[in-house]
Amino acid sequence: MHKVALIGAGRIGRIHARNAALHPRLRLAAIVDPVEASAAALADEWSAPVGSLDQVLADPAIAGVIVASSTDTHLDYSIRAAGAGKAVFCEKPIDQDLQRARGAAGALRDARLLLAFNRRFDPNFQALKARLDDGSVGTIESLQITSNDPAPPPPSYVAVSGGLFKDMAIHDFDMARWLLGEEIEAVWAAGSCLVDPEIGRLGDVDTARTVLRTASGRLCVIANTRRSGYGYDQRIEAYASRGMVRADNVLESTVQVFNEGGAAGDRLQNFFLDRYAEAYRREMDHFADILDGAAPLVGYADGVAALALAEAATLSAKRGEVVRP
Amino acid sequence: MHKVALIGAGRIGRIHARNAALHPRLRLAAIVDPVEASAAALADEWSAPVGSLDQVLADPAIAGVIVASSTDTHLDYSIRAAGAGKAVFCEKPIDQDLQRARGAAGALRDARLLLAFNRRFDPNFQALKARLDDGSVGTIESLQITSNDPAPPPPSYVAVSGGLFKDMAIHDFDMARWLLGEEIEAVWAAGSCLVDPEIGRLGDVDTARTVLRTASGRLCVIANTRRSGYGYDQRIEAYASRGMVRADNVLESTVQVFNEGGAAGDRLQNFFLDRYAEAYRREMDHFADILDGAAPLVGYADGVAALALAEAATLSAKRGEVVRP
Amino acid sequence: MHKVALIGAGRIGRIHARNAALHPRLRLAAIVDPVEASAAALADEWSAPVGSLDQVLADPAIAGVIVASSTDTHLDYSIRAAGAGKAVFCEKPIDQDLQRARGAAGALRDARLLLAFNRRFDPNFQALKARLDDGSVGTIESLQITSNDPAPPPPSYVAVSGGLFKDMAIHDFDMARWLLGEEIEAVWAAGSCLVDPEIGRLGDVDTARTVLRTASGRLCVIANTRRSGYGYDQRIEAYASRGMVRADNVLESTVQVFNEGGAAGDRLQNFFLDRYAEAYRREMDHFADILDGAAPLVGYADGVAALALAEAATLSAKRGEVVRP
Amino acid sequence: MHKVALIGAGRIGRIHARNAALHPRLRLAAIVDPVEASAAALADEWSAPVGSLDQVLADPAIAGVIVASSTDTHLDYSIRAAGAGKAVFCEKPIDQDLQRARGAAGALRDARLLLAFNRRFDPNFQALKARLDDGSVGTIESLQITSNDPAPPPPSYVAVSGGLFKDMAIHDFDMARWLLGEEIEAVWAAGSCLVDPEIGRLGDVDTARTVLRTASGRLCVIANTRRSGYGYDQRIEAYASRGMVRADNVLESTVQVFNEGGAAGDRLQNFFLDRYAEAYRREMDHFADILDGAAPLVGYADGVAALALAEAATLSAKRGEVVRP
Repeated sequence: MHKVALIGAGRIGRIHARNAALHPRLRLAAIVDPVEASAAALADEWSAPVGSLDQVLADPAIAGVIVASSTDTHLDYSIRAAGAGKAVFCEKPIDQDLQRARGAAGALRDARLLLAFNRRFDPNFQALKARLDDGSVGTIESLQITSNDPAPPPPSYVAVSGGLFKDMAIHDFDMARWLLGEEIEAVWAAGSCLVDPEIGRLGDVDTARTVLRTASGRLCVIANTRRSGYGYDQRIEAYASRGMVRADNVLESTVQVFNEGGAAGDRLQNFFLDRYAEAYRREMDHFADILDGAAPLVGYADGVAALALAEAATLSAKRGEVVRP
Repeated sequence: MHKVALIGAGRIGRIHARNAALHPRLRLAAIVDPVEASAAALADEWSAPVGSLDQVLADPAIAGVIVASSTDTHLDYSIRAAGAGKAVFCEKPIDQDLQRARGAAGALRDARLLLAFNRRFDPNFQALKARLDDGSVGTIESLQITSNDPAPPPPSYVAVSGGLFKDMAIHDFDMARWLLGEEIEAVWAAGSCLVDPEIGRLGDVDTARTVLRTASGRLCVIANTRRSGYGYDQRIEAYASRGMVRADNVLESTVQVFNEGGAAGDRLQNFFLDRYAEAYRREMDHFADILDGAAPLVGYADGVAALALAEAATLSAKRGEVVRP
Repeated sequence: MHKVALIGAGRIGRIHARNAALHPRLRLAAIVDPVEASAAALADEWSAPVGSLDQVLADPAIAGVIVASSTDTHLDYSIRAAGAGKAVFCEKPIDQDLQRARGAAGALRDARLLLAFNRRFDPNFQALKARLDDGSVGTIESLQITSNDPAPPPPSYVAVSGGLFKDMAIHDFDMARWLLGEEIEAVWAAGSCLVDPEIGRLGDVDTARTVLRTASGRLCVIANTRRSGYGYDQRIEAYASRGMVRADNVLESTVQVFNEGGAAGDRLQNFFLDRYAEAYRREMDHFADILDGAAPLVGYADGVAALALAEAATLSAKRGEVVRP
Repeated sequence: MHKVALIGAGRIGRIHARNAALHPRLRLAAIVDPVEASAAALADEWSAPVGSLDQVLADPAIAGVIVASSTDTHLDYSIRAAGAGKAVFCEKPIDQDLQRARGAAGALRDARLLLAFNRRFDPNFQALKARLDDGSVGTIESLQITSNDPAPPPPSYVAVSGGLFKDMAIHDFDMARWLLGEEIEAVWAAGSCLVDPEIGRLGDVDTARTVLRTASGRLCVIANTRRSGYGYDQRIEAYASRGMVRADNVLESTVQVFNEGGAAGDRLQNFFLDRYAEAYRREMDHFADILDGAAPLVGYADGVAALALAEAATLSAKRGEVVRP
């Protein structure tokens, strides 16, 4: 049993608390949050003590730290936890500022840090990756990533989000890197404000298409919108030399209703915490593996690379030209 | 080019007229119908002469006769055409009366007669049969045939139809024999009147389930209703020793609409002439093959065997007991 | 928090232990099993004490008893637990012997007893039921239940299983009753031994079709085989006056591979503990509701009624005639 | 009955000959081809006379001319036929040279000319358009067009094809204009040579992604490859303010094979003449409507606009920058 501490008792922190508490190889040994009531409530739910960051870092019995606090603290807390010799589970993104993220290389490049791009742990995307890896369809040539939110966030969220590319597409940039198996050399992005004019007034876009290209010419399209109107749309198609692999959406049930209008399937799962519930469990399982000695499958360098692509896309969409990340 | 004559210019006759007229190896050389105006209109459409049955039978240049007249004439016209040395394309059913149909054995057993069970020529069911024959799933063990009409016929039709089992399920009995590869030894049928009480008053049922069993124990379920409420539902599932093959319905288009209620596919094709358009073309093509010398894939004996199963099912549903056909 | 005890630490007992232990309103307060090592291992896993049946029944703090022991003890333990004033969660079947099951009416008819037909709690079948109940497709008329195991059990299991109808189809009889909304008046069953001759030598069948009929003429077909060859096949189609609702299988992932042979989807979930994992959680949640005062959604009388249908089907298949349950 | 002449007895000419000959409102009155044997064979097949272009243009009884000759003659023959007062059915593309195509405006802008972008007449894409038009999903915002050939053409074809964007994507540019309902203001294209190095040596690409943007910010991605490895992949997804409409591929049959590896569907239709057989029929039907007085649904200006987009994409892919068409 590895003792782990959780920093951040918000929405995503509560998910990680549950998964850590129920994990057979982990014990949730401390919950830290500046809002005392949040920490206390979550601690009560899982019979875990409330703690402070300093206590956690000073406690040699705590082997791992889960950083699920606000984005602007990810980098700092990760550096401090790694400095204290802990394994780190750091929520995405590593930071919103590329320069600052790159500046942490000295502290984090060699850390045992899992950067929590949860989609790498989704069973459907893992199954897609497995088909690519086992040669079922030959060598990958291009990729279509569709990643649409069901409904737009409030403008107050958009204002501090870092923009669509850093906030939303950052997951897709990581998926592209993971699946293409080659670094990106060129980024074109086109963004529009079609959903909510308020988002445009804040200088952001709500609808975007990004094209990535690798050195050998592999191509990837990322399609994003803040509002699909039909649920949380999360799909990938990987085109290869002998065929194609697709991971489709997850529906709320397998029920279909047939009547004179046709056959209607159930809704897409609408909420990311439902869609990726198993992914969150699997990434916590991987954190347990890291505490057992495994190397992180996705770490600091991946967080920086995805952020660099997000910054390149932001720039490309603004300038209307190709950008090299 | 083989000259063929068509007897019957009704709905199904018009389909066969078109397919014969457009067939590269057939020439539509005569159209016969007691209703002169019907014959004349169809003859005009395909630039074919109107004729009489006697002329057709006496004309040595006419090699084949398509019997698409009313059910009670199928047997008589087929016997006369066969007697005149013609190849015969006889619409289903061979007759409504099993004794009478069996009585024609002397005249028809060795005739070049194609009994037009069109579903054997449907591309989807042929593809299913091909998968069974090529060993993709091993040896067949059981069968599920779903065969539902979109909406009930008028009571006037039901009154002369011979009942659900002879009128509607007769196709399914033929499919069962074709796919099971073994004769049926036992028939259980359960029928209810759930759709239209008028059908019940006529002594018929509108909803039925029939279970067939072969000597080796293979099982087949036939599900029928006169009114599906969602289109013309024509499906088969064949269960075998290493898997299952399914032929699904044909939709009006591949379009799906996604909105907050879910994903809605298009309607099932609703009308049998649309659903089986290609089947009708392929069975006419097979008739051309027969005129070229091929043996009929489905003939007089199959027509009698399907009728015997329909009679057994009718009896079983009435008596509530197992019947041997 | 309601304290509950678990009787039986076998495969299904371990599932219930986990779900009870993790349930926010339940506390797993005792584990009872004649095999001490089994009880101890499970108790250790969930930090629960090992106990004896007598201790459990005598302990007024224990409000509920989960009977997950061997089938022949279900009835006895349920009667004793109910007699001690406990709420009872009784695994299916209530018993293999219909007379004995009926004989427990005095003790159990009014007990707070949840008979654990897990499929009623499956999210897909619940979604299907909801569509029937909300009138999306009108009034139910007929039902197709497909329920195939992936691979046959060993003959040693078959020998004590009570036969296909009591062991396997019992679930389907319960589903039929639940969805048809009317009691069954007539049962026809046809069974064959096509999968494993050893099963036949034991006097059982491995492939069956059962037709049920209600007083108003509603029809239900249950299709069973002990070996599908393609996974755990669990589907329902409900035909109604204005359409049809279908609950389809659950696949291992949403991945599809497209190559020159076509598009291949992933496997069906193969193991019942995977397919029904959520159903087991939901039925435990319902047990918590019962402990809070709710009436059981499925109880003693349902267990007896399903067993009566299984006995009728067994008889019908043997005699080749219709049986009234 | 309108008399029509066909110019060009090659592969696509033969399709149009059949559809014209079988059309109830058209009579195929002349077949013209510089290769006499081709003209004669096709004329024989449909009992139509061989003719010359001059005869056709001079014959006042011929109301329509179908231009299905080689691409470099489309413009010239269309101008001559229009000049002779004929209605023109002109195969795509209008020309490979944008300047030349624009130069024909004086002659063709007001001609009764159907530019034969067959996909506008495909039943699936028409159904998708109908859903967009009837408001099922609100206002269109973006579009994903996937258009992949099964296997690459020989290099000799590629050499004279005008390049992937003019030869292959030209259809998709037309679809984008048709469905977006707004002209394109900006074109980004990225092309790679991943399939056949010989295509690269000829200065062309075999894999491309093109992003189009309208004045109001609507976005369209076109995905093309010369070799899918899994058939002729022709799909469209239209994203709108309240949902999404998708037109999926057409399979060779509805058959699915289930075995221990999963469920395998049939192949995609592989050949464009199969996939678009009905589209070719429907566009001939529209030509008959034009001869009856209807305005062409797609004409000269559409041919020029699609060509302008193809030229812009070719340029964009070469220069790596955004191009305004």
